[in-house]
Amino acid sequence: MSADRPSNMSKEVKPESVLLHPLGTAAAPEQELLCIFGTGDLGRSLGQRLLQSGYRVVYGSRRPHSCGPLPQGAQATSHEAAAQSAGRVFICIHREHYDFLETLAPQLKGKVLVDVSNNLKKNLYPEANAEYLQRLIPGAHVVKAFNTLSAWSLQNGPSDANRQVYLCGNSAEGKLTVAEVATKLGFTALDKGSLSAARELEDFPLQLFPEWRLPLRVAFGLTALFFFYVLIRDVIYAYVVQGNDISFRIMVSLANKVFPIVSLIMLSLCYLPGVIAAFLQLYRGTKYRRFPDWLDRWMLCRKQLGLVALGFAFLHVIYTLVIPIRYYVRFRIAANTISQIRENKTSVFDTTTAWRGDSYYSMGILGFGLYLLLGITSLPSVSNALSWREFSFIQLGYLTVFFCTFHTYLYGWNRFLKPSSYKWYTPPAYLLCLVVPSLLIVLKLLLLLPCVDRSLIRIRQGWERNDPEDGSAKALLT
Amino acid sequence: MSADRPSNMSKEVKPESVLLHPLGTAAAPEQELLCIFGTGDLGRSLGQRLLQSGYRVVYGSRRPHSCGPLPQGAQATSHEAAAQSAGRVFICIHREHYDFLETLAPQLKGKVLVDVSNNLKKNLYPEANAEYLQRLIPGAHVVKAFNTLSAWSLQNGPSDANRQVYLCGNSAEGKLTVAEVATKLGFTALDKGSLSAARELEDFPLQLFPEWRLPLRVAFGLTALFFFYVLIRDVIYAYVVQGNDISFRIMVSLANKVFPIVSLIMLSLCYLPGVIAAFLQLYRGTKYRRFPDWLDRWMLCRKQLGLVALGFAFLHVIYTLVIPIRYYVRFRIAANTISQIRENKTSVFDTTTAWRGDSYYSMGILGFGLYLLLGITSLPSVSNALSWREFSFIQLGYLTVFFCTFHTYLYGWNRFLKPSSYKWYTPPAYLLCLVVPSLLIVLKLLLLLPCVDRSLIRIRQGWERNDPEDGSAKALLT
Amino acid sequence: MSADRPSNMSKEVKPESVLLHPLGTAAAPEQELLCIFGTGDLGRSLGQRLLQSGYRVVYGSRRPHSCGPLPQGAQATSHEAAAQSAGRVFICIHREHYDFLETLAPQLKGKVLVDVSNNLKKNLYPEANAEYLQRLIPGAHVVKAFNTLSAWSLQNGPSDANRQVYLCGNSAEGKLTVAEVATKLGFTALDKGSLSAARELEDFPLQLFPEWRLPLRVAFGLTALFFFYVLIRDVIYAYVVQGNDISFRIMVSLANKVFPIVSLIMLSLCYLPGVIAAFLQLYRGTKYRRFPDWLDRWMLCRKQLGLVALGFAFLHVIYTLVIPIRYYVRFRIAANTISQIRENKTSVFDTTTAWRGDSYYSMGILGFGLYLLLGITSLPSVSNALSWREFSFIQLGYLTVFFCTFHTYLYGWNRFLKPSSYKWYTPPAYLLCLVVPSLLIVLKLLLLLPCVDRSLIRIRQGWERNDPEDGSAKALLT
Repeated sequence: MSADRPSNMSKEVKPESVLLHPLGTAAAPEQELLCIFGTGDLGRSLGQRLLQSGYRVVYGSRRPHSCGPLPQGAQATSHEAAAQSAGRVFICIHREHYDFLETLAPQLKGKVLVDVSNNLKKNLYPEANAEYLQRLIPGAHVVKAFNTLSAWSLQNGPSDANRQVYLCGNSAEGKLTVAEVATKLGFTALDKGSLSAARELEDFPLQLFPEWRLPLRVAFGLTALFFFYVLIRDVIYAYVVQGNDISFRIMVSLANKVFPIVSLIMLSLCYLPGVIAAFLQLYRGTKYRRFPDWLDRWMLCRKQLGLVALGFAFLHVIYTLVIPIRYYVRFRIAANTISQIRENKTSVFDTTTAWRGDSYYSMGILGFGLYLLLGITSLPSVSNALSWREFSFIQLGYLTVFFCTFHTYLYGWNRFLKPSSYKWYTPPAYLLCLVVPSLLIVLKLLLLLPCVDRSLIRIRQGWERNDPEDGSAKALLT
Repeated sequence: MSADRPSNMSKEVKPESVLLHPLGTAAAPEQELLCIFGTGDLGRSLGQRLLQSGYRVVYGSRRPHSCGPLPQGAQATSHEAAAQSAGRVFICIHREHYDFLETLAPQLKGKVLVDVSNNLKKNLYPEANAEYLQRLIPGAHVVKAFNTLSAWSLQNGPSDANRQVYLCGNSAEGKLTVAEVATKLGFTALDKGSLSAARELEDFPLQLFPEWRLPLRVAFGLTALFFFYVLIRDVIYAYVVQGNDISFRIMVSLANKVFPIVSLIMLSLCYLPGVIAAFLQLYRGTKYRRFPDWLDRWMLCRKQLGLVALGFAFLHVIYTLVIPIRYYVRFRIAANTISQIRENKTSVFDTTTAWRGDSYYSMGILGFGLYLLLGITSLPSVSNALSWREFSFIQLGYLTVFFCTFHTYLYGWNRFLKPSSYKWYTPPAYLLCLVVPSLLIVLKLLLLLPCVDRSLIRIRQGWERNDPEDGSAKALLT
Repeated sequence: MSADRPSNMSKEVKPESVLLHPLGTAAAPEQELLCIFGTGDLGRSLGQRLLQSGYRVVYGSRRPHSCGPLPQGAQATSHEAAAQSAGRVFICIHREHYDFLETLAPQLKGKVLVDVSNNLKKNLYPEANAEYLQRLIPGAHVVKAFNTLSAWSLQNGPSDANRQVYLCGNSAEGKLTVAEVATKLGFTALDKGSLSAARELEDFPLQLFPEWRLPLRVAFGLTALFFFYVLIRDVIYAYVVQGNDISFRIMVSLANKVFPIVSLIMLSLCYLPGVIAAFLQLYRGTKYRRFPDWLDRWMLCRKQLGLVALGFAFLHVIYTLVIPIRYYVRFRIAANTISQIRENKTSVFDTTTAWRGDSYYSMGILGFGLYLLLGITSLPSVSNALSWREFSFIQLGYLTVFFCTFHTYLYGWNRFLKPSSYKWYTPPAYLLCLVVPSLLIVLKLLLLLPCVDRSLIRIRQGWERNDPEDGSAKALLT
């Protein structure tokens, strides 16, 4: 290895002097002059920052003498003159005005062009702005960079959310020279590869939680649904049938019924697609066929479903812990004690109730602990530090589902047998919410049966079942 | 610096084929020999680690025969001989002794010099150590590296906090070859750009939470202030006026009054500068004038203000949840129940109190949930994964401020009307702490008025109001 | 896009053509053809993904006409023909079958070979697979890449845990060209240096929490030990001696005794090795001798010990907060109140008890807060952002140990004096768990004595005590 390396190196590096020639002359010794095309907001912010970092800046403009207030110390001149004077040109103009750059192709030949543009919408144009620019001026080294920064952070330097500058481009030298500028401005440059990554970089500032939309909608829908269900069964029923106004229970009691329900359902929804996919593979006898689109989309937002579920679980925990401080609860406990005294009753300690209650809390706490562990391992920096085997191992999701479902069953205990639970002939909300996780656990247990598990593993290793029918069907089709 | 850099560059770049020649022969196949200048603590740690990683090491020393215990397997020789034998030289000596290196310039020409030095204070010298070294030996490829590691982690290999080695230097080849060493030692090399970044790297180990100082001081000051205020109003007042010793309340009750107050004030202080900046821009009619220094400094520590506030909010939550387990609280509740029985009173359930109490807890919990969300998104790895639009969106800070302020108003309810709240003519502490957040909310609401909002957006997009006066003033000045 | 890219490339790359000649012609304009050796599961997954990303794929196979179902659009041909047609060859075959590649050396000369192989065990072979491949075909540019991805994520694109592709190789051009493929597939390429890093990359998917094993075993052992100890002392003792069945206490009460005990012991175990190491250095009078192996291993898992301890502390906190909602607790409190009334006793408020209880809770909460802070700073992204000085500063570990130990002492208070605490002549569990942290605190205080501290600092700065005996011993040995 070390034997062939040096020879390698010399081969690789030698011709660089040829290549660097145009670059070398452009970034000539005493200058360190950068050129900016465009005197808009972005161009001015960038220029000001470059000047503060010790560069000299020249603006290229159509009307160099009437282009508004430029940062102090910057000059303005014609595009041609500006382009010729500097080796690196920042293109701070809108894509719609790129055409005229074609006429500057001779002046821009061999220069590094930094495309900082963004579009207002995705897929507005067939090709990325930077690729379009490269096509207009094939002789230049186009580098896409700085577009993910806001004008604010360009002007004011890096903040936490804006420390990274993503670069891409076909010319390694071009990228190096732009990365150097980014570093001098205080940013960290991250190379994202060739210019074909420009589209991705241009789409980056446009997306707003794309993979969070579906989970948040599901969460909102479920919350609204169960809130009204519980509202009708608890508050309105009490008002209509018993004439009691217990509307104050909305703030804590009802919320603390709805949150755990939504949390448990969403946690199950996070693991259900994996089970469905396994059954699909078993049924098809191969893993080489694509999943249906809905399943694919579902699987892609599993992490987000889980995190939203964790949020609801967290609220459930605090709402539960707050119970004994509530006025209502304290009042009821005192009233209870007082009535026991007045009526001279003695309640007997019931060990079964104690067992049930304590198991109920224990399951809930352990489930929440595992839940949190899953949440922590999904932090980008933690999951990056884990190997694939570790990550699958730590995804103790099914155990979490089991704990939380068991917690809910213990909550219900034998209450589902009491007719009084079925107000207006509706089942209690906790019973409804047990449907999805129970189904998930049953399906998962089926998959864990040795015979099923074995064929699933074989399928996942690439084995294919060739049913006689299936085979003939294939033969007919191909 | 920028004056000598380019000449540097041209020297460095052009002859690179030439330049790598000595390197090529030095790092010749069977050798992989590294040279270390300096047999101090750092030099020995580094040498030991290099030897363990499979390199051969030669030390350059003034007194090669009496330089103390060297790691086993290392040789020591004169600086000249050591420099000539290896292509990469680690400079583990103090900057004050760099001068003599100038005499070695011929031997060091074309070599990669790794500057690992640190200074004891910031701004001790006009230029970075590595830049000084480069100036002394212009023919060498100086790379700044390893200086952010402690001698401990150099010797013992990377730990979590010390996995990254930052590099900078003007020679790409030089950096590559140093990065290779870092990788072999088990570190991750991060290229920070040209040698001009050396100053930053040298300052890195010297800073101790620079942006945390102000927020921590504010937190400490507010905590002390409100602690004594509450101490006087509660404990001392009770002792002096009523003759009660309730000093035990200091540990939990008083703490749980001070923590939420400090938390709410600091959360408001975290969002206040943004609002002030907006009003300043509105008043000036432009965004192209710098903010006053105090505002700039305030804005730079907003994140830290918020995180300290979150810490206090967290303490407030646990102190609150612990309430019902306290001996004092249990005693009081039992005493209450007993007195109700003995006096044969029946307290009536008050729905308004129940509503107020439950809303109070709900607001608090939701506020804390949002608070935590803000905290999580400020983790570097999370905020790096968010686009700028997402990051501003998720900064649901004003909603958090609103929830927490409302929570505090509900805490007070109508108590501020009772004369008994104004012990010794002082207002209750919660009233004092409401001043800043209330002001913030009013100012923010003003900014959200359609007409104000519209001009603010225009100003932020670069529009400038040219008052007739202002314009003429400008004309006179220019 | 793909139409104008290559022309682009050739223009840019031309001066490099000397070096890249074979590459240049291979990756000729209209082609962008990649070759895959091996039609196994990995080869097919990779091929499918490459085809989806717009590449053309040709498989090299021994039996090109009967190699099973290939992804649609891919061709299969002999190894020789496939190798000649493409500039980049992905080697998706097991290392055991690498030998035959030697015969293809002429066709593979100058090509980029991407080694994606993994082994089933560590240290199965004396050299890394990629280095072996490089040795077989010295004329090729071997790049190790993609091996840390599962076949699943290769086929389905990057997910959170699998966004990064680690590369290493001796040829910078080779790595660039592979990084470009990775970027096009949606991954982020991370250069890990020269081919000598291949071993590390190949070991990466094989490790399963190596540094977590010891801490988890310790935690499990301590939990089991203390659980049975407490079970015997509480539940079995009550059953045998008093005839009470209080087995329901297992779920919450016993758990909440065991968790804090394990947590405190593990927290102390996390700081104990540091203190032992300091004493060892003091005793030896030098820091240049290696620690014994057991101490080294202990020190390497300190972070994991601390995080497991934090997990147990978290469970302790929630189990404690849940106390007042428990049926058992409510029953006991009500029974207490009722008996007070019936027996017409009046209990007197005891300020000392209030002080003790509130201090106990306060210490616990502050300790837990610091604990959490330590946990947060150990997140990779946070600790990377801290300088070494900041990291050591924030490691307020000893303060945490002190708070938690004090919390436990306050829990015990004067109970250890009561004979009734020593059921069956065994000390209470909390007394046992105080041994390690108390020892740690005493040792640490000894180290903080000015005279001890001073010599420790000198030793850590590299000073060595040369005892006359020691010196002569050395002289004899060397």
